[in-house]
Amino acid sequence: MSENKIPYKIYLSEDEMPHTWYNLRADMKTKPAPLLNPGTLQPMTAEELEGVFCTELVKQELDNDTAYFEIPREIRDFYKMYRPSPLVRAYCLEEKLRTPAHIYYKFEGNNTSGSHKLNSAVAQAYYAKQQGLRGVTTETGAGQWGTALSMACSYLGLDCKVFMVKCSYEQKPFRREVMKVYGSSVTPSPSETTNVGRKILAEYPGTSGSLGCAISEAVETAVSNPGYRYVLGSVLNQVLLHQSIIGLETKTAMDKYGVKPDIIIGCAGGGSNLGGLIAPFMGEKLRGEADYRFIAVEPASCPSFTRGEYRYDFCDTGMVCPLAKMYTLGSGFMPSSDHAGGLRFHGMSSILSQLYADGLMEAVSVKQTDVFEAAEYFARVEGILPAPESSHAILAAINEAKKCRETGEEKTILFGLTGTGYFDLVAYEKFHDGKMSNFVPSDEEISQSLAQLPEVH
Amino acid sequence: MSENKIPYKIYLSEDEMPHTWYNLRADMKTKPAPLLNPGTLQPMTAEELEGVFCTELVKQELDNDTAYFEIPREIRDFYKMYRPSPLVRAYCLEEKLRTPAHIYYKFEGNNTSGSHKLNSAVAQAYYAKQQGLRGVTTETGAGQWGTALSMACSYLGLDCKVFMVKCSYEQKPFRREVMKVYGSSVTPSPSETTNVGRKILAEYPGTSGSLGCAISEAVETAVSNPGYRYVLGSVLNQVLLHQSIIGLETKTAMDKYGVKPDIIIGCAGGGSNLGGLIAPFMGEKLRGEADYRFIAVEPASCPSFTRGEYRYDFCDTGMVCPLAKMYTLGSGFMPSSDHAGGLRFHGMSSILSQLYADGLMEAVSVKQTDVFEAAEYFARVEGILPAPESSHAILAAINEAKKCRETGEEKTILFGLTGTGYFDLVAYEKFHDGKMSNFVPSDEEISQSLAQLPEVH
Repeated sequence: MSENKIPYKIYLSEDEMPHTWYNLRADMKTKPAPLLNPGTLQPMTAEELEGVFCTELVKQELDNDTAYFEIPREIRDFYKMYRPSPLVRAYCLEEKLRTPAHIYYKFEGNNTSGSHKLNSAVAQAYYAKQQGLRGVTTETGAGQWGTALSMACSYLGLDCKVFMVKCSYEQKPFRREVMKVYGSSVTPSPSETTNVGRKILAEYPGTSGSLGCAISEAVETAVSNPGYRYVLGSVLNQVLLHQSIIGLETKTAMDKYGVKPDIIIGCAGGGSNLGGLIAPFMGEKLRGEADYRFIAVEPASCPSFTRGEYRYDFCDTGMVCPLAKMYTLGSGFMPSSDHAGGLRFHGMSSILSQLYADGLMEAVSVKQTDVFEAAEYFARVEGILPAPESSHAILAAINEAKKCRETGEEKTILFGLTGTGYFDLVAYEKFHDGKMSNFVPSDEEISQSLAQLPEVH
Repeated sequence: MSENKIPYKIYLSEDEMPHTWYNLRADMKTKPAPLLNPGTLQPMTAEELEGVFCTELVKQELDNDTAYFEIPREIRDFYKMYRPSPLVRAYCLEEKLRTPAHIYYKFEGNNTSGSHKLNSAVAQAYYAKQQGLRGVTTETGAGQWGTALSMACSYLGLDCKVFMVKCSYEQKPFRREVMKVYGSSVTPSPSETTNVGRKILAEYPGTSGSLGCAISEAVETAVSNPGYRYVLGSVLNQVLLHQSIIGLETKTAMDKYGVKPDIIIGCAGGGSNLGGLIAPFMGEKLRGEADYRFIAVEPASCPSFTRGEYRYDFCDTGMVCPLAKMYTLGSGFMPSSDHAGGLRFHGMSSILSQLYADGLMEAVSVKQTDVFEAAEYFARVEGILPAPESSHAILAAINEAKKCRETGEEKTILFGLTGTGYFDLVAYEKFHDGKMSNFVPSDEEISQSLAQLPEVH
């Protein structure tokens, strides 16, 4: 089909939706390093992980070899409520930028949780339900994951306890309301309801919280309540597996129109969207079938790829979780309270960390006010109010498109538009009123945070 | 195609999008009554209307005969940024309700303005731009129309001045922020910036405002600023014309799968969504080609169809606008400040009023807390957080589906899901906290409001 026949939005039919998730690890020569038991520093066994996670999810977490996992019919039916998501040709953006580049974005925001997080939330809730559990606990930063999990749990009839990073809880009062509409309980973290929360509050009174600390509280709550397990919206291998549906749909849609991206861009917090979007493309690269440039975009205020170290670290602040080998700023790192929205995790998915360490992917960090400028520009041109997280990818895509304008190259740029900014209007207002700053951690701050970690080899 | 092949969401391709709007008036035997000049009480001429509205829109407003209007290519291109909108088969809702009914809804919320209002906003902004105007003024109640117009104006490079009903301005701080992201100025109404605003404030200090009063302020601002015209998001014939795209897409999608609705339900404020959704179906009914039941659903707190009078009235509180013949509670009627969301206009589209007077349509009014109960139920079952306005239609659709459960009838129910509730979480919170009441105006209040109107025959 000729390029000029490409519609503004490519919607696959429900029949064309993938029936399997793709496990990128199967094609990695160097597998991601295993999770370690924080007590013994030995690789976590399935039995140990099953104390925290659902049995089926533990299998997915530990399986480095199976390339494809069947998506259960019930999950596919739920997906059909909001998927396939559109792959959008950004004709308007291309025109305004006067770029010869062709820009595409996979838009995951057209569901009430407002982001791609629902793809893994329903999978994790489904397996919890299958196992006969009463409920799940989790943390949420920007609130996207908590909302997604609330929707999935409400649909399946599971209880859902959410620990919400305190600064988001305060900046986004309506996020907690949405979660309540779906019947979840929402607690600002750190809280007085857990041992680890009380300890962190004693050590850092007035802290605005962090994802790492909310994770500790959610895990403690899961293990101390019978019939509960903990679920996580990013970082883990299982999450990247579920999110591969983003990339699989994108690839099917592009193949249908004979389009091949040159550059694939995603924002990177814990890696759920980036890992999902790039999965099938990176698979091709790993198998030597095609080549692509991959760019991870992270906030300058929480720059794990670009300024962190590749080493073992705890996934949480309370040091109760397993250790993961990843690019990290140190599990004690707290992003500035000036930082709006998500992408505030101190570390990065082990899969993506290994790919980055192997030179298969690039990373850039960007300033917050530049991100919001790109967000507003995009909203006016493409009509969609983007989430601040997604706007990191928008900014990098615009920068690449501008380079094409200079060089005259007709590159095809694909980026992930992970979500909408309906719940980020406090941050937009701050930006408008010129009250948004660009806090960047000092080298000293990062070294000090890393110095507190145990040596593991 | 057999029924069981119907997907969860029917997306038309961009090629299948209508190229024309459908003007229902062309098929009406009794045409809607003309607008009257408030001074002379004679039908408004095109020349008179052109002082307030764009020339091309005046033509559309006055044309009772042309059945189809070509949609300009630029508007169709803009539509492609968010249209065609999905027609959803509510499989999950049917299952939870254990109803033999087949339920469909046309979902207009998948765009940043969050509602169907964008369909007319871009048309009106386009014609203003074509005419070489500098900008437009308008009012907004729930904020959907103001956001839609802001998006359209920002895209086309037009200035946009929005008067926002004061209680919405206060209940929905983020609504005004979205409009600012798109570069609009937003003034709470009644305001001190207009003569009519100052007069209303003097008469009713502390008033929470009304659509009718915000309209007066917007009209005054348009006529006193050179290069500006006034635009309106509902009630007018031109708006129903633009919104016919909702019904046309719905009909095309249903025809494609051989589905014929028995009952068509829409929420009714000024009539923009209802009029647009039913247009092609009502056209068939008027031409004797098919029969359908049409149900308008309005709030018990602002019940123009079910408790108003069919007569000439002003469209605004300040009595500066033309008079329209419509079901009305009186232009001085102010819905209780307890009333959340939109659907707060004192009157109703002249087209719909005439159809209702001719017995071609039914109307019901519903209580606010019942509406929110239906909204929450729907959100949990179908995943989408609905706007309170849309939830009026949800409630009526659920009630009809329950009747089918009683009778065993396999009816096909279609309703309009006009928008999302992202900006209505103050109201959802109020509902949750048991602080929402069900104010219903007394007969005396309505009679008094109607008694103040001039007699026009």
